[in-house]
Amino acid sequence: MNIDSLVEGILARNVRSVARAITLAENYPHEAAELLRHVYPKTGKALIIGVTGAPGAGKSSLVDKLSLYYRKERDLSVAIVAVDPSSPFSGGAILGDRIRMQALSLDPKTFIRSMATRGNLGGLSRATADAVAILDSASYDRIIVETVGVGQDEVDIVKTADLSIVVLVPGMGDDVQTIKAGIMEIGDIFVINKADRDGVLRTERELEALLSMTERADGWKPPIVKTIAIQSSGINELEQAIELYKQHLDSGKANVFERKRRVAEQRLIQLLRERLLQTVLEDDSLKTELDKAAIEVAAKRCDPYSIVENICKRVIKK
Amino acid sequence: MNIDSLVEGILARNVRSVARAITLAENYPHEAAELLRHVYPKTGKALIIGVTGAPGAGKSSLVDKLSLYYRKERDLSVAIVAVDPSSPFSGGAILGDRIRMQALSLDPKTFIRSMATRGNLGGLSRATADAVAILDSASYDRIIVETVGVGQDEVDIVKTADLSIVVLVPGMGDDVQTIKAGIMEIGDIFVINKADRDGVLRTERELEALLSMTERADGWKPPIVKTIAIQSSGINELEQAIELYKQHLDSGKANVFERKRRVAEQRLIQLLRERLLQTVLEDDSLKTELDKAAIEVAAKRCDPYSIVENICKRVIKK
Repeated sequence: MNIDSLVEGILARNVRSVARAITLAENYPHEAAELLRHVYPKTGKALIIGVTGAPGAGKSSLVDKLSLYYRKERDLSVAIVAVDPSSPFSGGAILGDRIRMQALSLDPKTFIRSMATRGNLGGLSRATADAVAILDSASYDRIIVETVGVGQDEVDIVKTADLSIVVLVPGMGDDVQTIKAGIMEIGDIFVINKADRDGVLRTERELEALLSMTERADGWKPPIVKTIAIQSSGINELEQAIELYKQHLDSGKANVFERKRRVAEQRLIQLLRERLLQTVLEDDSLKTELDKAAIEVAAKRCDPYSIVENICKRVIKK
Repeated sequence: MNIDSLVEGILARNVRSVARAITLAENYPHEAAELLRHVYPKTGKALIIGVTGAPGAGKSSLVDKLSLYYRKERDLSVAIVAVDPSSPFSGGAILGDRIRMQALSLDPKTFIRSMATRGNLGGLSRATADAVAILDSASYDRIIVETVGVGQDEVDIVKTADLSIVVLVPGMGDDVQTIKAGIMEIGDIFVINKADRDGVLRTERELEALLSMTERADGWKPPIVKTIAIQSSGINELEQAIELYKQHLDSGKANVFERKRRVAEQRLIQLLRERLLQTVLEDDSLKTELDKAAIEVAAKRCDPYSIVENICKRVIKK
């Protein structure tokens, strides 16, 4: 594949080039690295919005309606990255995609992509970060990363967004009370979706009480927006809350650079972890050694810890 | 900490030593590696049972009742490892622990532990595998690893068990139909819990239809067991199904060694990925370099891909 023409296609926001580059990042991280070196300097213009929440909170509908709002009311281009933890029990993202396709896919300024875990090829958060970088360089104005909100991988993904939306639903009992402190750090905006259900006031009060207990260093008070996504209700209020936060980021009150530095730090470690392993596994004799070692370990003649320690000592320069 | 006395404590099934060793594995994988080298030769006696299923399927109750059955009816020692993806939306494992404590904690032949993600220290599946190895060397007869069933990490965890139980509940609509092919590979035994609910027959028939479409190479036909865990109903049938599968494994019909070899292979790669990174980061000058690089990346003066490529070239011997 010609990297130069692919880069050209991405920067011209050619949908096929963008899609192909993301597939490359998912399946061939090493090859994708060269591509990403080229597009990386063009990133940083998009507003990256993370959306997370418990399964069944209606995140997909919310994201779809927000995207439609961006297209119709603001003429902004939108890319959606739906992160599917590819569990045998999920299936949500795939169904979600189908519904979305009907409403959005014919629009060239909307890009939709599901990301699934690619086990050994280095994790969902790395691949998602690559996809976001590709979409950012393709000049999409808003990139929405939607995750199911379970698993550390997904929390990591949300933390790298410019702005994070946490979606809750009323009537989930004492759900808000069992929410851990982590959520307060993650959420820049809170949405209570399905706000026509019973218990919305209680959920709102509980959330307000939780929010009032914490004060952010940047002075931002995370707003609570009530929506009924399937009726498109509350979407404009959500969009306004997002713009307010964007202004807050632009105002300099938030230490944006410190956040970017932390994201960069995490990204470097993530890439280093994977590339070290890949570089070592490029050596065929080491691969053969590992194959033999697996048999020894399975037969309990060796322990895996000693084998790995030994390999590390040999392959890493001190 | 004295590794020798800790090893001694583990092998004597001293609960404090076991708990301390698992904490070590969670937080200090490097230090734990030395310990694990010592206990590893003593592993391989326990039957490791993976239990997974959608949130709300009643896995915790099922695991608790199964454990009680093992203690009361079979006088077997049991260790439970409840994997908490430590999402802000979970909280289940923690609550589960409290309920369990009441019923089980006073029994010295029962060990219960929640595992939470420790972000950068190398992932949940590595830490869980270490914990299982520690418990196995401490001669627990049955080790039950319970996961929420979302995320690749957890699927990886379940795959390393000797036997995997997939827990479903009736009345979740077309849930069974949305289950992906992956589940058929994972489940050695299927449980329909909350079997007093409406729709149990439909769920059973759908599951049977799905199971009839696949034939396993080892000739095992995964049974479907109906339980009402909170009433302890069906637990003895589940235990019998587990014993039948254990006999199947012992019979030699299942290619147990091939499975162990694959698990060992995965484990070696997992450990290698982490230890390579750790070994590289032990170098203080490299850490300083990464800190500076994070600032350059955040300022868009460098791209992370080139920096990581450069480090890999320098630190890995060819």
